[in-house]
Amino acid sequence: MSGPNVVELIDRKKRGGELSAEEIAYLCRGFTSGAVPDYQVASWLMAVCWRGMTAPETLALTLAMVDSGERLDWSGLDRPTVDKHSTGGVGDKTSIVLVPLMAAAGAAFVKMSGRGLGHTGGTLDKLEAIPGFRCNLPLDEMRAQVARIGCALVGQSPELVPADARLYSLRDVTATVDAVPLIASSIMSKKLAGGAQTVVLDVKWGSGAFMRTVEEARTLAAELVRIGEGAGRRTRAVLSPMREPLGCAVGNALEVREAIDTLNGAGPDDLWRLTLELGAHQLLLSGLAASVEEGRATLARLRGEGAGARKLEELIEAQGGDPAVVRDPGVMAAAPHVEPLPAESAGWIAAADAREIGIAALELGAGRRVKTDPVDPAVGVVVSARIGDRVVAGQPLAHVHARDAASAARAAARLRAAFQVAPDAVEKPDGGYEIIG
Amino acid sequence: MSGPNVVELIDRKKRGGELSAEEIAYLCRGFTSGAVPDYQVASWLMAVCWRGMTAPETLALTLAMVDSGERLDWSGLDRPTVDKHSTGGVGDKTSIVLVPLMAAAGAAFVKMSGRGLGHTGGTLDKLEAIPGFRCNLPLDEMRAQVARIGCALVGQSPELVPADARLYSLRDVTATVDAVPLIASSIMSKKLAGGAQTVVLDVKWGSGAFMRTVEEARTLAAELVRIGEGAGRRTRAVLSPMREPLGCAVGNALEVREAIDTLNGAGPDDLWRLTLELGAHQLLLSGLAASVEEGRATLARLRGEGAGARKLEELIEAQGGDPAVVRDPGVMAAAPHVEPLPAESAGWIAAADAREIGIAALELGAGRRVKTDPVDPAVGVVVSARIGDRVVAGQPLAHVHARDAASAARAAARLRAAFQVAPDAVEKPDGGYEIIG
Repeated sequence: MSGPNVVELIDRKKRGGELSAEEIAYLCRGFTSGAVPDYQVASWLMAVCWRGMTAPETLALTLAMVDSGERLDWSGLDRPTVDKHSTGGVGDKTSIVLVPLMAAAGAAFVKMSGRGLGHTGGTLDKLEAIPGFRCNLPLDEMRAQVARIGCALVGQSPELVPADARLYSLRDVTATVDAVPLIASSIMSKKLAGGAQTVVLDVKWGSGAFMRTVEEARTLAAELVRIGEGAGRRTRAVLSPMREPLGCAVGNALEVREAIDTLNGAGPDDLWRLTLELGAHQLLLSGLAASVEEGRATLARLRGEGAGARKLEELIEAQGGDPAVVRDPGVMAAAPHVEPLPAESAGWIAAADAREIGIAALELGAGRRVKTDPVDPAVGVVVSARIGDRVVAGQPLAHVHARDAASAARAAARLRAAFQVAPDAVEKPDGGYEIIG
Repeated sequence: MSGPNVVELIDRKKRGGELSAEEIAYLCRGFTSGAVPDYQVASWLMAVCWRGMTAPETLALTLAMVDSGERLDWSGLDRPTVDKHSTGGVGDKTSIVLVPLMAAAGAAFVKMSGRGLGHTGGTLDKLEAIPGFRCNLPLDEMRAQVARIGCALVGQSPELVPADARLYSLRDVTATVDAVPLIASSIMSKKLAGGAQTVVLDVKWGSGAFMRTVEEARTLAAELVRIGEGAGRRTRAVLSPMREPLGCAVGNALEVREAIDTLNGAGPDDLWRLTLELGAHQLLLSGLAASVEEGRATLARLRGEGAGARKLEELIEAQGGDPAVVRDPGVMAAAPHVEPLPAESAGWIAAADAREIGIAALELGAGRRVKTDPVDPAVGVVVSARIGDRVVAGQPLAHVHARDAASAARAAARLRAAFQVAPDAVEKPDGGYEIIG
C-alpha cells in the first residue's frame, strides 16, 4: 500500500483537479521504474491535454524529470553559466554563432542540441558537416573543455533527464505531444539538469515554427519562464516570428557556412539581430552587462575583433573538427548541382514559406523523415529574396543545392509554391522581438 | 502499412473529430489482438471521456465488440426472444421474478447476469443461495433448456464479447469507466451478442444507483436505446428512481425469498410494479401483447394462476437447484442472529438511503469489496419501513440478519444513519416510470 492510488490521481486530473508535487513525483518515478504502467501514464497524459496543469504541477513534473538523471554542476567555474533553447525553426543556426561569442564575452556556455526531424534541422546535423567534428563528448571531456575554452556544442547527454526521452516516446504514440505543460517541462528539465544559472529561450512562431501563432508562443514562453524562475534560474524568453527561414541558408553545410560568415562580420541581418538579442539578454541576466544595449555593443565589438570566430575555431578543434573551416568553409562537402530558381514575374516578395522551404531541403536529403534516415551534409536551399524585397522577372529567388538534377527539379517545384510575388509593395517584417520574463 | 494510423485516430478524437466505423473496428480488433498496445487504447479512452462519441461511433464500437466473440442464434425457436438489463441497484431481484413470468407468457428469456461488487448485489450470488443451483451452463445445455422451458438465469458466457471484459479491465485502471458511450456500448454489446429481438433496459438513478441523477439516467438510456435500435433490436428503457432499496430485502437468500413471495402473490409493491412495467413493455415490443396495459394484465393473471412460480420451479430444477425452495424458502441458509433496528423517535420516514443500506449488507458479508471475496448467502438487511411510512418510537425500521452479534451491531450503526425520521408527514415516492424509446 505504498504510494498514492494512481487511478485516483488520473481521475482527479480528468475532473480538472490538481496533483501535489509528491503525487507528480510518484507518477514520474513510477513511469521510469515501470511501477506505473504505460497505459496509466498514457491516460494521465491525455487528461493533461484536456485539463492542463497548474504552475505548481508543471514545476513539480519538471523537477521530477530532472531527478530521473544526473545534473551538471558548474560551481567550480570562475565564470557565469548561460544556456539557451530554441523551439526550433527553419534555417536556425543561431547556436553556432552565439555560443562562441558568449564564451568570448566571458560566459560558460554548454549548448546541448538535437538532430533534425521533419522540416526543421538540428544543430548536431549541421555541425557534423564540419569534417571530423564530434558532438558526443563524454561528460568528463566536456567539463574539461568548458573549463579550458568556456564552451561546447554537444548532443543531449543520455545521463541527463532519461525520463524525458522515455516520456516523449510515449507522448509520440499517444497523440499527447502538443500539451503546453508537457512541452515546457520537457524543455526546462533539460535546461535545469544542464546546470546553467541563466536560461534564455528563443521561442519562434509562424508557419515554419512549432508554435503557429504568437498567442501559442506567448503561452509556452510564459510557462517556460515560470518554470525556470520557479526553479531558481534567471530565465527570459525572446519571441520572434518565423514566416520565412532564419537567415538564407537551409541545409547543413550551407548553414554552417552562413553561421561562420556571420561571425566573420557578414551574413544575413535577421540572424545577426536575433543572435545579438539572445546574447544581450544572456549577458544582462548573468551580470556581464549592465543593460541589453551594453550587451549588444559587447557582442558587436567581439565580432568586429574576430573573437567569436577565433572561439569557434577553438571549439571545433577541441571537438575533433577541422578548424580551417572558419577561414575556408570550402573544406565542407558541396552539392554537385546548384541551380537557381528564377522569379516568374516582377514584384515584391509577399511570402517565402519557411515550412515549405524546410520540406524542400528535407526532400533534397538535408533532413530526416524518420529518426533513422541519414542526412546529406551538402544539399539544401539558399534563399536570395526575402519578404518585402523587390524582384525582377528572372532574378533568382533561391538556389537549390542538390545531389542530382532530378532532385533539384523536385525541390524547385516545391520552392516555387513557397514563394509569392505580389504586384504591389510589401512591407518588410519589422523584426521586433517580444520579451517575456 | 495496413490499417489506419492509430496516433492519427487518437489525435482526431482528442480534437473532437469523429472516427469511422472501420477505424473504430480496427482499434477494437487491434486492442483484442494486441496489435494496438494498451497505452494507445488508454489514451483514446481518455480522449473519449473528454470529447464523447457520436451515435455512429458508439454503435460502431458496440458492433465491433460483439464481433470479438460468439453470438447466440435463436432463429430455431418458435417464440419471441426478450432480454433486459438493469444498471444495478440495491435489492434488485427483478430478474428472478420477471424471467419465469415472461417465459410463462410465451417469450424465450435468457438472462445473463453478473456478481455483486461494492454496495450492489449480483443476481448470480442471489441464485446461488438456492441449494445446488448452477449459474454456469455450457452454451449447448443452455440452448436445450431454453428450447424446453423457455428461460435460463445464467452467468455471462465468456464466449460472448470477450473484448468487453478486456476493455473494462483497462478502463478500470485508467479512470475511464464513467464515460456514457463506453458504458452504453459495454451493456449493449452483451445484449446484442445474446441475440434477443427485444431488449428492455431498467435504468435506475439516485443515491443507490450507478447514475446519481435523472439527467444522467436519461442520457444513458437514450444512448442504450439508440444503439439497440441502430442494431435492429426493439429497445426501450424504463427509468426508475432508487432512493431506497427495491423491495425490502437486501442480501442473497433474503432476496430470493422476496422474489418467490412476489411470484406467489405477496411481496413488496414496488418490486411487483417494476416487474410488471418491464414485462409489459417486453410483451408489447415482442408482439405478445397489444398494449402495455394488456401486458400488465397478462402478467398479473399469470402470477395469480401460479404460472410464474411453477416456471421458476422448472428453471431451478433444470439448473440443478432444489425446486422445493419455491414452496418453502426455508431450505435456504438463514442467519443465526436476527435483530430489529428500532426507530428512536416517532414520525415519517424521510430517507432510507439505498447506498448505505447496501453497504451495511456488504459489511455483514452479503457482498464483495473485491472480486475474490466470498459471499455469505444468509446475511443481509430486511427493511420494514419505507419512505413516507409513519412510524412510532421503538417500531422496527429494519431487521439485521447477521452471522454474529458483533457484525449485527456494526450494521445497525450504519443502518441507523441510513434512515431519517422526520417530524412531519413525508410524501411517498410516486413510483411513476419514465419511458425512453
